[in-house]
Amino acid sequence: MMIVMKEGATEEQVKRVVDRVESVGCSAHVSKGDVLTVIGAIGDRDRVAALGLEGTDGVDHLVPILKPYKLASAQFRKGERTVIDVDGRRVGGDDFALIAGPCTVESRDQTLEVARVVAEHGASMLRGGAYKPRTSPYSFQGLGENGLRYLAEAREETGLGIVTEAVDVETFDLVEHYTDCVQIGARNMQNFSLLRRAGRSRRPILLKRGMSSTLEEFLMAAEYILAEGNYNVILCERGVRTFADHTRNTLDLSVVPAVQSLSHLPIIVDPSHGTGKRDKVLPLSLAAVAVGASGLIVEVHPTPEHALSDGYQTLDPGQFAELTSSCRAVAELLAARHFSGRELH
Amino acid sequence: MMIVMKEGATEEQVKRVVDRVESVGCSAHVSKGDVLTVIGAIGDRDRVAALGLEGTDGVDHLVPILKPYKLASAQFRKGERTVIDVDGRRVGGDDFALIAGPCTVESRDQTLEVARVVAEHGASMLRGGAYKPRTSPYSFQGLGENGLRYLAEAREETGLGIVTEAVDVETFDLVEHYTDCVQIGARNMQNFSLLRRAGRSRRPILLKRGMSSTLEEFLMAAEYILAEGNYNVILCERGVRTFADHTRNTLDLSVVPAVQSLSHLPIIVDPSHGTGKRDKVLPLSLAAVAVGASGLIVEVHPTPEHALSDGYQTLDPGQFAELTSSCRAVAELLAARHFSGRELH
Amino acid sequence: MMIVMKEGATEEQVKRVVDRVESVGCSAHVSKGDVLTVIGAIGDRDRVAALGLEGTDGVDHLVPILKPYKLASAQFRKGERTVIDVDGRRVGGDDFALIAGPCTVESRDQTLEVARVVAEHGASMLRGGAYKPRTSPYSFQGLGENGLRYLAEAREETGLGIVTEAVDVETFDLVEHYTDCVQIGARNMQNFSLLRRAGRSRRPILLKRGMSSTLEEFLMAAEYILAEGNYNVILCERGVRTFADHTRNTLDLSVVPAVQSLSHLPIIVDPSHGTGKRDKVLPLSLAAVAVGASGLIVEVHPTPEHALSDGYQTLDPGQFAELTSSCRAVAELLAARHFSGRELH
Amino acid sequence: MMIVMKEGATEEQVKRVVDRVESVGCSAHVSKGDVLTVIGAIGDRDRVAALGLEGTDGVDHLVPILKPYKLASAQFRKGERTVIDVDGRRVGGDDFALIAGPCTVESRDQTLEVARVVAEHGASMLRGGAYKPRTSPYSFQGLGENGLRYLAEAREETGLGIVTEAVDVETFDLVEHYTDCVQIGARNMQNFSLLRRAGRSRRPILLKRGMSSTLEEFLMAAEYILAEGNYNVILCERGVRTFADHTRNTLDLSVVPAVQSLSHLPIIVDPSHGTGKRDKVLPLSLAAVAVGASGLIVEVHPTPEHALSDGYQTLDPGQFAELTSSCRAVAELLAARHFSGRELH
Repeated sequence: MMIVMKEGATEEQVKRVVDRVESVGCSAHVSKGDVLTVIGAIGDRDRVAALGLEGTDGVDHLVPILKPYKLASAQFRKGERTVIDVDGRRVGGDDFALIAGPCTVESRDQTLEVARVVAEHGASMLRGGAYKPRTSPYSFQGLGENGLRYLAEAREETGLGIVTEAVDVETFDLVEHYTDCVQIGARNMQNFSLLRRAGRSRRPILLKRGMSSTLEEFLMAAEYILAEGNYNVILCERGVRTFADHTRNTLDLSVVPAVQSLSHLPIIVDPSHGTGKRDKVLPLSLAAVAVGASGLIVEVHPTPEHALSDGYQTLDPGQFAELTSSCRAVAELLAARHFSGRELH
Repeated sequence: MMIVMKEGATEEQVKRVVDRVESVGCSAHVSKGDVLTVIGAIGDRDRVAALGLEGTDGVDHLVPILKPYKLASAQFRKGERTVIDVDGRRVGGDDFALIAGPCTVESRDQTLEVARVVAEHGASMLRGGAYKPRTSPYSFQGLGENGLRYLAEAREETGLGIVTEAVDVETFDLVEHYTDCVQIGARNMQNFSLLRRAGRSRRPILLKRGMSSTLEEFLMAAEYILAEGNYNVILCERGVRTFADHTRNTLDLSVVPAVQSLSHLPIIVDPSHGTGKRDKVLPLSLAAVAVGASGLIVEVHPTPEHALSDGYQTLDPGQFAELTSSCRAVAELLAARHFSGRELH
Repeated sequence: MMIVMKEGATEEQVKRVVDRVESVGCSAHVSKGDVLTVIGAIGDRDRVAALGLEGTDGVDHLVPILKPYKLASAQFRKGERTVIDVDGRRVGGDDFALIAGPCTVESRDQTLEVARVVAEHGASMLRGGAYKPRTSPYSFQGLGENGLRYLAEAREETGLGIVTEAVDVETFDLVEHYTDCVQIGARNMQNFSLLRRAGRSRRPILLKRGMSSTLEEFLMAAEYILAEGNYNVILCERGVRTFADHTRNTLDLSVVPAVQSLSHLPIIVDPSHGTGKRDKVLPLSLAAVAVGASGLIVEVHPTPEHALSDGYQTLDPGQFAELTSSCRAVAELLAARHFSGRELH
Repeated sequence: MMIVMKEGATEEQVKRVVDRVESVGCSAHVSKGDVLTVIGAIGDRDRVAALGLEGTDGVDHLVPILKPYKLASAQFRKGERTVIDVDGRRVGGDDFALIAGPCTVESRDQTLEVARVVAEHGASMLRGGAYKPRTSPYSFQGLGENGLRYLAEAREETGLGIVTEAVDVETFDLVEHYTDCVQIGARNMQNFSLLRRAGRSRRPILLKRGMSSTLEEFLMAAEYILAEGNYNVILCERGVRTFADHTRNTLDLSVVPAVQSLSHLPIIVDPSHGTGKRDKVLPLSLAAVAVGASGLIVEVHPTPEHALSDGYQTLDPGQFAELTSSCRAVAELLAARHFSGRELH
């Protein structure tokens, strides 16, 4: 932590800050300039933060230097990337994950139909919500356990892994029982009780970035899961909230290489929620592959026009086939050029 | 819902949309212009939304017309304002609520000391976190039930009502047991399971606006609580996330009159989190009173420099005394001018 | 400037940075911690920035320490506040400025009529656009010099000072000739050629904050004007662009005390553009007075429904009378309490 | 324009709105629902807007239906895409433009050296600022006409086209004289006088999106240029301002397909300013190609560490060579798959 003193801060004020920094077992290095004095507090960031030095006489502001995440940091794995094994399907490293399916599990037939379509076109996992976080209490909230059963049946038939969301601690056990990978949604990215429960799960976790989450907060949310002992976390960019109104959210693809340089965890992209518009899903999927994402999660429905939720951002089977084949081609090209060692499978 | 057709949409396409709107029991009114055709779908907004018409051939976009909240709307109470009774203390209507206390309950002594100070200066309730949602898993997470006990003891001694946060369904019962008003924090504004639990509570709920929540989402979160039967919801503006970096959040005071024109629920303001800077708390408190807020919730600590969290935005007792007296004066002036019938007490 | 080295940066890399910092005449102070090394570069910020050290081997990132503005800083006037004299009317310090008038000068009659109304209710200056920056090339762009003449005629009759916008260097001379105070609009806040021209003007300048301007950029825009020799700059908050959609812009009242602690320049507030909604103008005006603004600039029209632009955010004469009287009362109350020495006149 | 009436609006109020709409030559279609009445005003949007109906008794809000841009719209060219000819180099359609060079023209040697490097690696044009819009009045503002001369000399030697920025109307003639394509920077996107001057230019214009510009405002800025008769406008996405802090701006790649569906104008991407970080330029360039951009504009410097501005986001020659070859490969792959007919040359 750097402590920047105000112009005109006195010797006395500087000394008092140094004393307080040292009182919590950190060391203080004073740099005096012609105009400003800056104190470097080296040691445990939390302890220095807890001193509440902002607001102390003579202190202008504090600048954090060290990153607050440890287990999620690239340094923790000494630069090696984590590859998550979702019951035999790999996400990260040499592998590209294609997760597809309906926004919401609506019925047994719909679920099996989509599962067959996405399996045929090379998806590695099936997504679909059995519990849905909905802005309105009057909207359809999902089929619950029945939805989970349909997903499990689809896995039996197609061999696809299953990704579905857990919206609270109460239903986490049930979701964990049926699924191969548990999703934590954007609205719950800072639901710390849910994150801790995910950290005690035996399943890999797909953690979506919150709508106004900084990169640091995103990695700290992952840190909550890792700190409880579950090291299998897949991050997912799904668009952030901005003033821009031509898409529902603004897909922030720069976060992909940013995560890759700060963390060992794999990151995938959700172009369906990230744009909220069907005709933007293909170009942004290609862009996500090109920027280096370890996978995609996209919404597919046999008849998007009849989808009970988010139909306007959902691909039909033909569009999904086009997406798969194009993204595969770009991923292979980049792998061949050693941009990444990823293969699409 | 208005359905705006694309330029050049065919008669056939228009007819198909009309048929689908009518198929879910709504009526469709077609307006044909020289360039565009617009279809007004009158009836249940959710049903029309569920049709997924965006993406249908010939449809350009949909414009929602009706507000999706019902119980939270001003119409529901026919323009009358709700006054919440927090065990004898009134929030809303003629009354101005002053809620003050430490960010975090740190010890019995600190809690009692702050309680005495804020009671002396006219606060109606004591705030303080026993369970803290913290960005880092390594930060102090609160004293838990012990913290709740200290708050209850402070109530015994001072007569102040207690407001404290419930961070999850698991600990809600305990919080509800000790406190007079349960706070739902900004990070949990769309934690729908927690909102539903709050809706089944016998305590009034203080609901904070999420960091990137629109006004509609804010009122929909309240609607979740109301829909379960708890009509005692106090809304709270606490700053939103923007590019601006001179305060920690950007306090959006315009949401106060906006809520007052759309909803019957009272709204208060948190200038401590809303600015994140001690020297901005007083001017923004005055502004919040002037804009018509039904109350303030502010952080006070006997020695802010030693606070375990958020010390840099916390007032000391002297600053709080100044705030109380100034805000009281402004509130009385405006009440006398019939801007509102509020009295500070 | 603080230069934060990467974890594992070598002695060699640290030395190279130190050498480069010293090569431009600055001094370098090295703080070595257990994990990180930080180098404080003390001296001319621009020279250090020009070294382009970000990207150098071993460097993680740079943290600017010193503020880049000099003439606009509070230090420059040693804490004394600047009071601007607009041909006898004072803005800042003990004085509260009330600037009112139509968005656009539409005709001689309309201009004189509004001028009489706002003069009667205690405005100190008349606003009104003769040159209008419009999003669409097909929208009415203002009456030009005729508009300026009507404003001048209104001054003759009412004694009000005139504030009107200069949209480019080409027409600046003309605007400067007719008006008492030249406005630079939000869209031109970083039109540096226009700022330099304003800096060579003999008129006070009303500088509006850009729609996505940080506080530092805002003060740097003022610095451009001051650096050319014109020290009479009035700052104006008029709302920033965010995701929030219940007002046209999000009025950031926290910038008022933030400017007052960093700069000697006065700052006023525009609640008309800041909210874009007529029924929000009065509450946000009261809030602006309470937060400590040195004045208001509001839109008034004899018949807002017939205004050629921005009618939906414009007050009618009765609403303006109510605003004046209420804001005056709040300003007097706060002055009496020594929050500021302002008087409304 | 749709005019949504308030719940409980009277027949009388509806009739008054209809009369006013018809009074300006538009037709009004009334849709009465159980709860709401909506009036479709069909005709000139500007005339209806000028009525200022928002704020009229009984009116809740207005919803614009028609797009306000005409010449920039896809309909204007009946779906055909515009290909801009920059003195023999084509931008848009089958062609992919690679514009590269230093942020700022610093000297004759540096300019020629970069020009040779970027020409060798297949750039079609050379970028470089002779007039620089700088946040600080104390920063280096560019070499002016000398800079333009060095660019012209580089063109002589390498055959590259020249793109450089005009920052004001005063120096536009000079810039136009030396360059092949005139850039309008992000800060000037709504400098309407400059846009009109660009509209009277005989040179193609590269128009950068403003930092908080919506898509509609961006296309309206282009409309200003087109409306003056210059149809050769290349749009450029360069990142928008958000809360995210891991890149300097948030590159909004979704705007590329959004522009392509609404406008006939080509759009390119600036990943250098769009990220502000050297190590993010390559991945985001690949993403920009994949999303369908018609070109890239990137910063290259022989020794980025010594660049006078923006060195931290500037590629060295080796990095540029890698970028060119990789982007070329992705562009060719996509062209072969008929995503676009673009060829890199």
